[in-house]
Amino acid sequence: MKINNKHYKTIWFNYKKNVVEIIDQNELPFSFKIKELSTFEESVNSIKNMNVRGAPLIGASAAFALYLSYANNNNLENLKNDAKILISSRPTAVNLAWAVTRIMEKVNSKKSNINKDFFLNEALEICNEDIEACKKIGTYGLELIKQIASVKKNKQINILTHCNAGWLATIDWGTALSPIYLAKKSGIDIHVWVDETRPRNQGASLTSFELNEENINNTIISDNAGGYIMQKGMVDLCITGADRITRSGHVINKIGTYLKALAAKENNIPFYVAAPISTIDWQTSDYRKVEIENRDNKELSHIKGIDTNSGKKTIVNIYPKNSQSINPSFDITPNYLVTKVISEKGCVEPSEKEIIKLK
Amino acid sequence: MKINNKHYKTIWFNYKKNVVEIIDQNELPFSFKIKELSTFEESVNSIKNMNVRGAPLIGASAAFALYLSYANNNNLENLKNDAKILISSRPTAVNLAWAVTRIMEKVNSKKSNINKDFFLNEALEICNEDIEACKKIGTYGLELIKQIASVKKNKQINILTHCNAGWLATIDWGTALSPIYLAKKSGIDIHVWVDETRPRNQGASLTSFELNEENINNTIISDNAGGYIMQKGMVDLCITGADRITRSGHVINKIGTYLKALAAKENNIPFYVAAPISTIDWQTSDYRKVEIENRDNKELSHIKGIDTNSGKKTIVNIYPKNSQSINPSFDITPNYLVTKVISEKGCVEPSEKEIIKLK
Repeated sequence: MKINNKHYKTIWFNYKKNVVEIIDQNELPFSFKIKELSTFEESVNSIKNMNVRGAPLIGASAAFALYLSYANNNNLENLKNDAKILISSRPTAVNLAWAVTRIMEKVNSKKSNINKDFFLNEALEICNEDIEACKKIGTYGLELIKQIASVKKNKQINILTHCNAGWLATIDWGTALSPIYLAKKSGIDIHVWVDETRPRNQGASLTSFELNEENINNTIISDNAGGYIMQKGMVDLCITGADRITRSGHVINKIGTYLKALAAKENNIPFYVAAPISTIDWQTSDYRKVEIENRDNKELSHIKGIDTNSGKKTIVNIYPKNSQSINPSFDITPNYLVTKVISEKGCVEPSEKEIIKLK
Repeated sequence: MKINNKHYKTIWFNYKKNVVEIIDQNELPFSFKIKELSTFEESVNSIKNMNVRGAPLIGASAAFALYLSYANNNNLENLKNDAKILISSRPTAVNLAWAVTRIMEKVNSKKSNINKDFFLNEALEICNEDIEACKKIGTYGLELIKQIASVKKNKQINILTHCNAGWLATIDWGTALSPIYLAKKSGIDIHVWVDETRPRNQGASLTSFELNEENINNTIISDNAGGYIMQKGMVDLCITGADRITRSGHVINKIGTYLKALAAKENNIPFYVAAPISTIDWQTSDYRKVEIENRDNKELSHIKGIDTNSGKKTIVNIYPKNSQSINPSFDITPNYLVTKVISEKGCVEPSEKEIIKLK
């Protein structure tokens, strides 16, 4: 999709420089910077520090990290160790483990000629598949929006989303936002309520930013306001992404998703979760077994913004001196709060019986 | 209660200087400043700009504002006009209108000798009554905590609260936090989960600050995290304050309260609302008729903190340049989500039948 009217993906290979390049998402929305990754360490740090983030994108980033590991060291033992480091770098999103496992299984099967081109092609293939999957998610999600638009007789459709599950969370198009981009292209009058999504504010910093760049009407709200606007009839449907969907249809997604799903249920508003099949955790049906990542609590106490005096990027500490905090990054939305899962193979009920059909 | 180990109230009359003094809550938690109010205009601006905030405290502040109006002008017509200005300065909390109406009814009845001492005494009486009411709320709330402590066999009790309904929202003691202060004094092991409460972060800036000053264990969480910690069994009960309680028991409180009440219901956690009877709106039973205040959306986009480089207080803009936002300040928690209302006359079910008994 576009930034400053120029088309970008979130990650790509620069053949001239022989490096992987990413949009540095920690710099958004204040500046647009492209970051070069030329070693495995740079790559895994870009995942840990969330220069790249979003379940599908960290899957693709992990694939590029394996390429950089092998390209620099030409050593399979080292690669296997790096694969383990990658998987533990962010424990909740399942796409990361999915991408690493997919490549390592091919390596271990010894069916392919293992050289650096093999790893680069694997990474590029994962990216291309993700783009295709996101486009299809958009097409299936668009049908759901069209149904609501026809009931509302083409009045404006108000969609609430949480965190960022736009093209910046994938390679292109996005998951939750892909249906919105397609709805806009097909002439539906769309307005998006963007939860700011504390603590890292990816809703405000990334979702609102990318919707602005694509000229899609959107309004940021505090995370607290979502229930109120649902009570007031200001939301027609909710769509979020997912970091992991268990085989039984429970959704692990950015902290706060669960509260919005509860409010949607209470107010009879459909709550859709859009994700590629690589987000499904086929092993786990008991969601209590999913490891929820606790991140640095400085993500809560320290906020980046533009100093209103100097105009410079500044980090401020907003908490009392001696206060403690905790920062769990994801929560669990039980399947009975989810209306449908929108995947690249169509929409399914969030139940084991239905989800298994996507395998 | 205490700041830097010295006892304060939130508002008082300084007889030497002949001014009303307040703790400037917009300066907390970064600095502790006392602000003098010597005119009606300064007083009403301190309410509008939230130098004083919290439903009971703005009631008392309004009473002092009427004193300043009369003391400076000695003019009843002017006073009546100022009374109207006051009532519209913050439309949602009902205590403000309650305090103004109570005084103006006495003025209109002509039973009292109307001079500036009359107004000062009225303001001081409202303050004293509020302190007594808050202490009693604490006593009744303590009983509820004790019941839970006895079931938990004196293990730590975890209480979640939203926004600030501590002594800083009242004259002293607080509403939601009053039972917590008394529980601590009676030796119960208490830990408080403090919702940071975007957009103005009164949870982090005021609740955590005042609990720290009273040595009460507390941990700040993002507003998004409350549902997750309830799912994980980390919350024994919730207590919030209220800006208005309708005669039918619906609770209008800081935006986001509704989402926590939904999550508490879902997880079988009691959800208590603590408020003095002056918070009850006897006129309204249909909560849809309550005016919800929309505040400046700069409260969302601009955040004050300590610059990590310069160590100075700094305001940063955290949103993308062209993004829109809205800032509704309160939401409505329907009565069926509230376990009990804790008032100075005891605990009641949130129903018209029970609430009417408090009149």
